[in-house]
Amino acid sequence: MLYLVGLGLGDADISEASKDVLKKCDVVMADGYTASISAKKMETVLSISSKEVEMLDRHAMEEGISKILDKASSSDVAIVTNGDPLIATTHKTILIEAKRRKIGFKVMHSTSIFSVAIAESGLDFYRFGPICTIARWSEHYKPVSFYETIAKNVSGNQHSLVLLDYDSVKNESMPIQEALGILSSAESHYKQGLITTDRKIGILCDLGTEKQRIEYSKFGKINKRLNYTMATLIFPSNPTDIEADYIKMYERE
Amino acid sequence: MLYLVGLGLGDADISEASKDVLKKCDVVMADGYTASISAKKMETVLSISSKEVEMLDRHAMEEGISKILDKASSSDVAIVTNGDPLIATTHKTILIEAKRRKIGFKVMHSTSIFSVAIAESGLDFYRFGPICTIARWSEHYKPVSFYETIAKNVSGNQHSLVLLDYDSVKNESMPIQEALGILSSAESHYKQGLITTDRKIGILCDLGTEKQRIEYSKFGKINKRLNYTMATLIFPSNPTDIEADYIKMYERE
Repeated sequence: MLYLVGLGLGDADISEASKDVLKKCDVVMADGYTASISAKKMETVLSISSKEVEMLDRHAMEEGISKILDKASSSDVAIVTNGDPLIATTHKTILIEAKRRKIGFKVMHSTSIFSVAIAESGLDFYRFGPICTIARWSEHYKPVSFYETIAKNVSGNQHSLVLLDYDSVKNESMPIQEALGILSSAESHYKQGLITTDRKIGILCDLGTEKQRIEYSKFGKINKRLNYTMATLIFPSNPTDIEADYIKMYERE
Repeated sequence: MLYLVGLGLGDADISEASKDVLKKCDVVMADGYTASISAKKMETVLSISSKEVEMLDRHAMEEGISKILDKASSSDVAIVTNGDPLIATTHKTILIEAKRRKIGFKVMHSTSIFSVAIAESGLDFYRFGPICTIARWSEHYKPVSFYETIAKNVSGNQHSLVLLDYDSVKNESMPIQEALGILSSAESHYKQGLITTDRKIGILCDLGTEKQRIEYSKFGKINKRLNYTMATLIFPSNPTDIEADYIKMYERE
């Protein structure tokens, strides 16, 4: 049996049910590839499971699937992951392969950036358009397609949830200065007037953790000193009265 | 201080952090209005908090806000809710009013239908269009606007997550027969060819609980014997290869 066990966003988000799974599993491994797990969370996993926990890198999670499934075919194996599992394609591939090999599996869910960002943004869930990600730029790869998603959402009066690319080596999402630079460059590329000094944006830092901090401000006045491990941006469309009241709680002049 | 404490979807989803909050709070209340809390979860809350837990109805959660906030101004008050808090407008209104009265608040997150449905559907998160709800029909109120949302998502090659209206008295979401009937009636109204016998639909029952069951099938072949407390529908657009492989695991001929 294979368990994908979500550790959630906060350091103490692990559920009662997941603790029971970690206690009973013969083998516990940690997904160090699709997202990084904090030292505090790893300590908790070690202490609950009372066994050595192997850290899985990209190679182990992709080319090494069959080694993991060999173990799961004869014993109870848990892979702990940050946040809510099964959002990453890698996790889906593992379960598809488990099913093909007739190995049972179960996903233990936890707190998730999708739900927490929508909740803490104060905006109505049914008014969000498709989610997008601002990816890191390199010399030869400068993707700006997120701009099209946000612009389309804005034109349809829908809110946008924008993830920032994650650097698993540095264990941090894109710094605010870098994100603002890419947004400005995308504006120069498309010139549709999406990124203007007056565009209101929400910056949701370290959601669901003790360090959570939310700021809504105009693009031209964004707090450039924001320090975070993980941040998510919100582009609100025209807010309803209650949405506007909620945003005001976090507004920065 | 006011805490909104999410109990999640499964009976044992409560987090370590939330247990600590329930232990230290002077007053614990339960939101019996925006969603129903299972007997098993209530037992857990009573046993962790070791105090009487007042059940709040619509009146207490809306007209009665100031009574709740009076308590929170001088002591630590927790309101437990099903799933992840702060999705319901009622919760946002309470926090806006708390802020106005300078009462501190904190939201303790948990597993959420949004994240779990996207995860368990096997479909890519960035390919989902806006979420919608199929509301119950009465003699004089027969809303069909969900059809427009789904049709627009389909035409943009986006997936749809469709919630079913919840009956807090019966403690169950709309039975499958009723949902299929409303879908067919909406098709008769719009006649855009969205609901056909060949349209593939996912029915995700009791997600994140011990009773979780997922079935993908053509509209004309949907399993009418599905029994559930809460269900969510998925209208997939054209799947990618991995999405198609994932869907196959739950396909019903």
